[in-house]
Amino acid sequence: MKLVSYRLDHNGLWRSGILQGERVVDIASAVAEAPADMLALLDQWDRWKEPLHELSRQESEQIQTQAQSYSVQEVILGSPLPRPRSFRDFYAFEAHVKTARARRGLEMIPEWYDFPVFYFSNAAAFHGPGASVKKPKTTQWLDYELEIACIIGREGSNIAVEEADDYIAGYCILNDWSARDLQREEVKVGLGPAKGKDFATSLGPWLVTPDELAYAARSGEQGLRYALTMVARVNGVELSRGQFQDIHYTFAQMIARASADCTLYPGDVIGSGTVGTGCILELGEERHRWLQPGDVVELEVEGLGVLRNTITE
Amino acid sequence: MKLVSYRLDHNGLWRSGILQGERVVDIASAVAEAPADMLALLDQWDRWKEPLHELSRQESEQIQTQAQSYSVQEVILGSPLPRPRSFRDFYAFEAHVKTARARRGLEMIPEWYDFPVFYFSNAAAFHGPGASVKKPKTTQWLDYELEIACIIGREGSNIAVEEADDYIAGYCILNDWSARDLQREEVKVGLGPAKGKDFATSLGPWLVTPDELAYAARSGEQGLRYALTMVARVNGVELSRGQFQDIHYTFAQMIARASADCTLYPGDVIGSGTVGTGCILELGEERHRWLQPGDVVELEVEGLGVLRNTITE
Repeated sequence: MKLVSYRLDHNGLWRSGILQGERVVDIASAVAEAPADMLALLDQWDRWKEPLHELSRQESEQIQTQAQSYSVQEVILGSPLPRPRSFRDFYAFEAHVKTARARRGLEMIPEWYDFPVFYFSNAAAFHGPGASVKKPKTTQWLDYELEIACIIGREGSNIAVEEADDYIAGYCILNDWSARDLQREEVKVGLGPAKGKDFATSLGPWLVTPDELAYAARSGEQGLRYALTMVARVNGVELSRGQFQDIHYTFAQMIARASADCTLYPGDVIGSGTVGTGCILELGEERHRWLQPGDVVELEVEGLGVLRNTITE
Repeated sequence: MKLVSYRLDHNGLWRSGILQGERVVDIASAVAEAPADMLALLDQWDRWKEPLHELSRQESEQIQTQAQSYSVQEVILGSPLPRPRSFRDFYAFEAHVKTARARRGLEMIPEWYDFPVFYFSNAAAFHGPGASVKKPKTTQWLDYELEIACIIGREGSNIAVEEADDYIAGYCILNDWSARDLQREEVKVGLGPAKGKDFATSLGPWLVTPDELAYAARSGEQGLRYALTMVARVNGVELSRGQFQDIHYTFAQMIARASADCTLYPGDVIGSGTVGTGCILELGEERHRWLQPGDVVELEVEGLGVLRNTITE
């Protein structure tokens, strides 16, 4: 099932919906007592998951007579979670870490292989598919990052790797927009990144529940891996291509790490880190200049859709 | 005026109150239409600030006949913001950065003087005065950090230094509990700190509005500085003593930095970073061992009260 947050105009409240083909079915109008807001649904995910799956299996004609629905063209899609409870971004693809460091003349860090690391980033600057992303005035080196996020659907702490996949409500494409010049300066001080990343993060176009990706899942001792191709295009030209199953640390391992002596909550967003080749920093400026106003960046992941944003001044 | 979040038992909802001497006056019962929740008050701070100041100026006998009030002994005080919208922690005292680095054999970082840096930390693990703080199972090097926080009371972005103090609703003492062994390992990978800090942060005992500290304020081109003595005690023994006005970057400068190309919201918490001598990492283990279950840590700041927490297993 694919869940969206949508609104009918720019002043409206975000409401949760189910995507049925080309139509968005309003959840609160279709399921008795269901809350309109995605975060509230996730807060009681174990209660709403099944009724929503049932709804998504019904014939579209049947649903559309019973519930409010709209063509996906006539609504504004937002970040599936307009305001996540928190945003942790990991660094779980080896190729990205190696290449990004090599570009700066740095060796691989031995500690990277010891445990998955993350940083907290800004949960209050999430954008949805189609949204414009403002280039920060102070950056000349604006970059995209091709990632996948998992959305937490159950509260827990000290979650074991073997159980961690059960805490995932679904997956989205994530673009961790990066101001490389700001990031380069601030991390010298030994904290962050913060200003290099806080201006915008894109999530979407929808939240895809794990059952839809079961065909691509490989289970192992470290939890699930998915064989999903990940691609990024700038102005229609493919720049990045990677494989989600190449990830070194699984989401199950990331959840175990994040929840050690710390409570995770529904609506927390966990980013995978950038897939190998998944940003201009890795590719080098000889391959593509930094992003500029007017550029259209599309991230596409098999099974998860296309997350498209335009850079503005 | 001093604002608190309180509840009557451990299952109750947090409600906002005004501290009047030894009594907590329930705000929603005293001010018509005022919301019960501190975050909701801050969301409309420009509306509620004056009615609350008026209330705080009334005679206590008069208030207590009109509104619900409790002895401060009979309520549980929480973090003034039980769940901040976000938590940014800066690194604004030169002595702390210098000494902490020197302890690891590192020179001062030249870039530290160029701009104030921060990292995002966990806004979902805030504790109030009197709360127990669990030692993470995986740390042997548990430390406190003596800081002051400002609480944002007005939405804004690209806030100029000259105007930034107007965005502050008030100040609290902040203890940025730190697992130094976890922090030392994770920052080698170039992100964070995250797990070194995410298990707990203490805030309180109350939110003090700027008017109460006017006697200690010095204004300058970079905004306000306050001459306030800061002290930390472990099990009654003073370990740390610093001066808030020694801060290199003012809160106004931090707000300008944080809000550059990024929106700040009411209920965002901004930490100052640790005052010089304000943690065991700086003092060295020869001065005091790392914290252990049973230890009582008290942070005291002139005008802001005492924030006391006990470490548990």
